[in-house]
Amino acid sequence: MSFTSNMRLRLVGLRPVIVLRPRQCIGCRSISASSIRRVNRAVVYTENGDPSQVLSALTYDDLPPPPRDTLNIKFLLAPINPADINVIQGVYPAKPSLTSLGEGRSVFVGGNEGLAEVVHVGDGVSGLSSGDWVVMTKPQAGTWSSSSNVRSEDVLKLPRADALTEVHGATMTVNPPTAYNMLHDFAKLKKNDWVVQNGANSAVGQSVIQIAAARGLKTLNLVRSRPDLEDLTRKLKALGGTEVLTYDDLADRALIKTIMNDWTGGKGIRLGLNCVSGKDTSAMARLFGSNAYLVSYGAMSKEPLSLPTSLFIFKNLTSVGFWQSRWYKTHTRQDKENLMETLVDLVAQGKLKEPEHEILSISAHDSDEVAGGKIRDIFTKMSAGQYGKKVLLKFESAK
Amino acid sequence: MSFTSNMRLRLVGLRPVIVLRPRQCIGCRSISASSIRRVNRAVVYTENGDPSQVLSALTYDDLPPPPRDTLNIKFLLAPINPADINVIQGVYPAKPSLTSLGEGRSVFVGGNEGLAEVVHVGDGVSGLSSGDWVVMTKPQAGTWSSSSNVRSEDVLKLPRADALTEVHGATMTVNPPTAYNMLHDFAKLKKNDWVVQNGANSAVGQSVIQIAAARGLKTLNLVRSRPDLEDLTRKLKALGGTEVLTYDDLADRALIKTIMNDWTGGKGIRLGLNCVSGKDTSAMARLFGSNAYLVSYGAMSKEPLSLPTSLFIFKNLTSVGFWQSRWYKTHTRQDKENLMETLVDLVAQGKLKEPEHEILSISAHDSDEVAGGKIRDIFTKMSAGQYGKKVLLKFESAK
Repeated sequence: MSFTSNMRLRLVGLRPVIVLRPRQCIGCRSISASSIRRVNRAVVYTENGDPSQVLSALTYDDLPPPPRDTLNIKFLLAPINPADINVIQGVYPAKPSLTSLGEGRSVFVGGNEGLAEVVHVGDGVSGLSSGDWVVMTKPQAGTWSSSSNVRSEDVLKLPRADALTEVHGATMTVNPPTAYNMLHDFAKLKKNDWVVQNGANSAVGQSVIQIAAARGLKTLNLVRSRPDLEDLTRKLKALGGTEVLTYDDLADRALIKTIMNDWTGGKGIRLGLNCVSGKDTSAMARLFGSNAYLVSYGAMSKEPLSLPTSLFIFKNLTSVGFWQSRWYKTHTRQDKENLMETLVDLVAQGKLKEPEHEILSISAHDSDEVAGGKIRDIFTKMSAGQYGKKVLLKFESAK
Repeated sequence: MSFTSNMRLRLVGLRPVIVLRPRQCIGCRSISASSIRRVNRAVVYTENGDPSQVLSALTYDDLPPPPRDTLNIKFLLAPINPADINVIQGVYPAKPSLTSLGEGRSVFVGGNEGLAEVVHVGDGVSGLSSGDWVVMTKPQAGTWSSSSNVRSEDVLKLPRADALTEVHGATMTVNPPTAYNMLHDFAKLKKNDWVVQNGANSAVGQSVIQIAAARGLKTLNLVRSRPDLEDLTRKLKALGGTEVLTYDDLADRALIKTIMNDWTGGKGIRLGLNCVSGKDTSAMARLFGSNAYLVSYGAMSKEPLSLPTSLFIFKNLTSVGFWQSRWYKTHTRQDKENLMETLVDLVAQGKLKEPEHEILSISAHDSDEVAGGKIRDIFTKMSAGQYGKKVLLKFESAK
């Protein structure tokens, strides 16, 4: 968002082209695609805290024509990712900037990831046209909003493919690239090599399974014990996972021996992906062979990462972290375009599926109070663990 | 050692040149350097266990002339390093080979590091002459012995320098290269950058202080609280250490802030060296800036290395291990020669001092029983923590 408190926002009579695509939708209304007039709305907060307490919905005026080198975009769909909650709580290292919406009210607009459509292209912008799909490469772009004015360098055009849905597009810049880069940037693996990961049922975990399978890598997928373990195992194997085990299984020494000797041919595993930490990750480390990499991208156990020092000294383990936001900061535009092309190509080949998801649609007929209540309610349910699926926000347009 | 059980060892009338140098010595006898006849003796064991129980001394015959591509060497001085104890206990990943000494008795000869003098050069060996000083690049070479036949590729000629003593030479292949490589192979540091290390009073720690000082790097040296802290601080600063703190000091938040903001100019520290692990190392990690490396080479606390996952993800910490034995395995002969030249050059410039040490001299007049008792006694004292200094073994020659 590039609004500033010096910029008065007024109704300027834009006529955005609304293309409604078929989608899975919670409580969405049937809307005619013709002659509608959008209400601009954003999910905002003014102080850090529990999202179910501090978030509200705020209606704001239409955008003025885009200044030079910028574009006006409308967001089609934006996910609520776990890290977004940490951002709102104020405990995440990346923070959004204050934005002036409506009558000069300074707020933080929620949302880091999202799919938008280019509506109006400012002078000096090349390579982007009205109707193009774009994703954000600038972190904390305030994607939980209807529309935004952005610098052209802060967005990336998404290649179109028949198979590419809005859900794919809205979830394309965080989880699949995290999975892709973790599989490519560290251990040099070849076909039939193994990768072990914990939290294998996470959104990143499911991307890892699919991208690894597309590369011919085998995955050992670790999950918590649970009543529906068979269903989950079937689901992860259907995505391309080679084996699924629970953390409890790792206490079985005979099984460890089988994995090390039979499955990996005595070599052990050279790439581990970690979003859990704590003792289950210490147990996972027993599966490493020499010169392995442990790449951490989360710590769901909220415990530290604790490993025997001997693994580092004698087995040459390297423990690193991966943060897709840093990747975007440290890579060229060309790298980013190549990454998106690669991922969209996997989608086009049917090798990277939409994440399981639900869409929360905010009706244009709701008042800000009602819309804010719906949003806060979602976060209450999410923190109570009632959403196993990814939740995406969609702001409905209105006449 | 390249003896095999098929090789009968006989007295062959070698006439080794014995050059006795002035040295610091525990209980050594005054011996004339002329017309002496060496007794070949080795510190051996046949099963793993507590060194104070399983070690014995074994006299063996003189070596036959060296086969092609090998040399006969006599050891001048060999240290007892902490890892040697783990090797004898059977808990170290590198293991010695069985050697046949004397009347075909198969034993393990202790000792990984040591300084030897070339006595007899076999056909086909180039670049080495009688009288040259050599060090071992093959691990577990059985250096606690009087003499050995070695392949020329398993030793490295040590450049001579006036300042280079036997003690320097005998301790040149493990601790100083560990320090040197840890300072060079990971974080790219420039003059006045900081390095933090724990166990700063260890032999490696003292090498780190000196080599860092020679490069213009600043060191923050962490040690345990102790009654003689002022003396130790003075000693480490005299070696070139910039600051000395205790692990307890790291609980002082104001001090941490001072280190981060004032000492490092807000950047934090980008290289940490760890031989302790456990909670004191977790505390040390608070001093890291972005893109830091934590290089572990020991775990004196016997606790795991436990770090917040966020350090890896958001501050891009890389945690690795360093093992000098692996370095030797994975580097060229030229690399090894360059390393020795660099270290000897530091010695020649007075920038790398002998470690504090004591020499245990085993008299040629002692029976194997008496000599074995003296050796076992040293390990009893070492395990009781009675040696703060490095202990080096010397086998005296006899008429």
